[in-house]
Amino acid sequence: MKFKAIVLDIDGTITHKDRRLDLRAAELLYTLDIPVVLATGNISCYAQAAAKLIGLGGQVIAENGGVILTGYYTEPIVSDNIGECEKAFQFLSKYYDLTKFDPDDRKTEIALIRNFDMGQARVLLKEQNFEIEIIDTKYAIHIKSNKINKSTGLKIISKLMGLTPVDFVAIGDSANDAEMIRSAGFGIAVANGDAEVKKAADNVTKASFGDGTVEAIEHLRSKGQI
Amino acid sequence: MKFKAIVLDIDGTITHKDRRLDLRAAELLYTLDIPVVLATGNISCYAQAAAKLIGLGGQVIAENGGVILTGYYTEPIVSDNIGECEKAFQFLSKYYDLTKFDPDDRKTEIALIRNFDMGQARVLLKEQNFEIEIIDTKYAIHIKSNKINKSTGLKIISKLMGLTPVDFVAIGDSANDAEMIRSAGFGIAVANGDAEVKKAADNVTKASFGDGTVEAIEHLRSKGQI
Repeated sequence: MKFKAIVLDIDGTITHKDRRLDLRAAELLYTLDIPVVLATGNISCYAQAAAKLIGLGGQVIAENGGVILTGYYTEPIVSDNIGECEKAFQFLSKYYDLTKFDPDDRKTEIALIRNFDMGQARVLLKEQNFEIEIIDTKYAIHIKSNKINKSTGLKIISKLMGLTPVDFVAIGDSANDAEMIRSAGFGIAVANGDAEVKKAADNVTKASFGDGTVEAIEHLRSKGQI
Repeated sequence: MKFKAIVLDIDGTITHKDRRLDLRAAELLYTLDIPVVLATGNISCYAQAAAKLIGLGGQVIAENGGVILTGYYTEPIVSDNIGECEKAFQFLSKYYDLTKFDPDDRKTEIALIRNFDMGQARVLLKEQNFEIEIIDTKYAIHIKSNKINKSTGLKIISKLMGLTPVDFVAIGDSANDAEMIRSAGFGIAVANGDAEVKKAADNVTKASFGDGTVEAIEHLRSKGQI
């Protein structure tokens, strides 16, 4: 099987632990002659800045699937689920002193500083039946629509690129990468990945963080699979 | 003279011609043990994404001095000159079919696609006495306050960092870097720089783009000046 594109997470997957770009991974991604899509829980501006600085085509899945862009100067495709997330945020604010990341820039979900017990918050939310889920990407705790994830984002962007999710290799490290890794043609978790994402993956690399992604891509290339 | 910090432009200065990050420059900036401030005509989100991906401290001068941030999770200092820029934009819109970059994200100035004659636009604006200037950074044409530039940004951020502009080495390539380069303790233009920025600089590198910045920093380091 020869794959036609790669989709991969940014933080923890093509970076070092401190979120600094792994420069070997950046160089390698730039040299690939298939499209490389960045998929992140971060905002679209961050995702497109990373794509521009690495030298990619600007196709990004941002806000965990809520915002999709197929190039640098194209209109974003934005889901309309922020209202439900805001309701859950107001509810949780009765119990915790919550602080939002990028409140002015997030269009579809809410990202919070990791200063509260997510497990306990999930229990509190369970009875409320908001159409949301709450996930920890290790960089932030996200309140997001339970109808949207990086896999739904991949479905949308792959169609716009004339592809399907099975044409993609997906690489990631966090719980929010698991659906995307399952729906791609081939899914890879880097060694620093969560148990959940490792379980979802076809392969787990020996190396961690950006080194893991370099290992994965070099392996796929040596096998003629990309 | 030993300098205490570096301030440098992003596009054309630490990138290749296509705006891709120069990975040698990125590596070198990360290894410096003095603060590195990024100063750009781009929006603050882009500037902070670049700082994060390079592994810097998040001090940025964005929108050509209109927006200042001293770290990743600090409140931005935002100038209030967008109204005057908007008046000039409305005036020019009578003559040209103008397209804004990042209209939702720019807080203090207007950036336009370079599809009109800037020289002619300047002539048209001359009689109007708006408190603005119009500059070409080679990536966009900016309508900006004539009271703000990267040098006024450097004055503000240096004070917040407990420094003064003369404590800084400044590196840049475009007309919008000239004031900053003049006000810094030592100003360097990379070889691809405009005539104006080269004239303002104390030194011009032999190499262009990111290679020029690597040359400049290695030279300063070899002389013990940083």
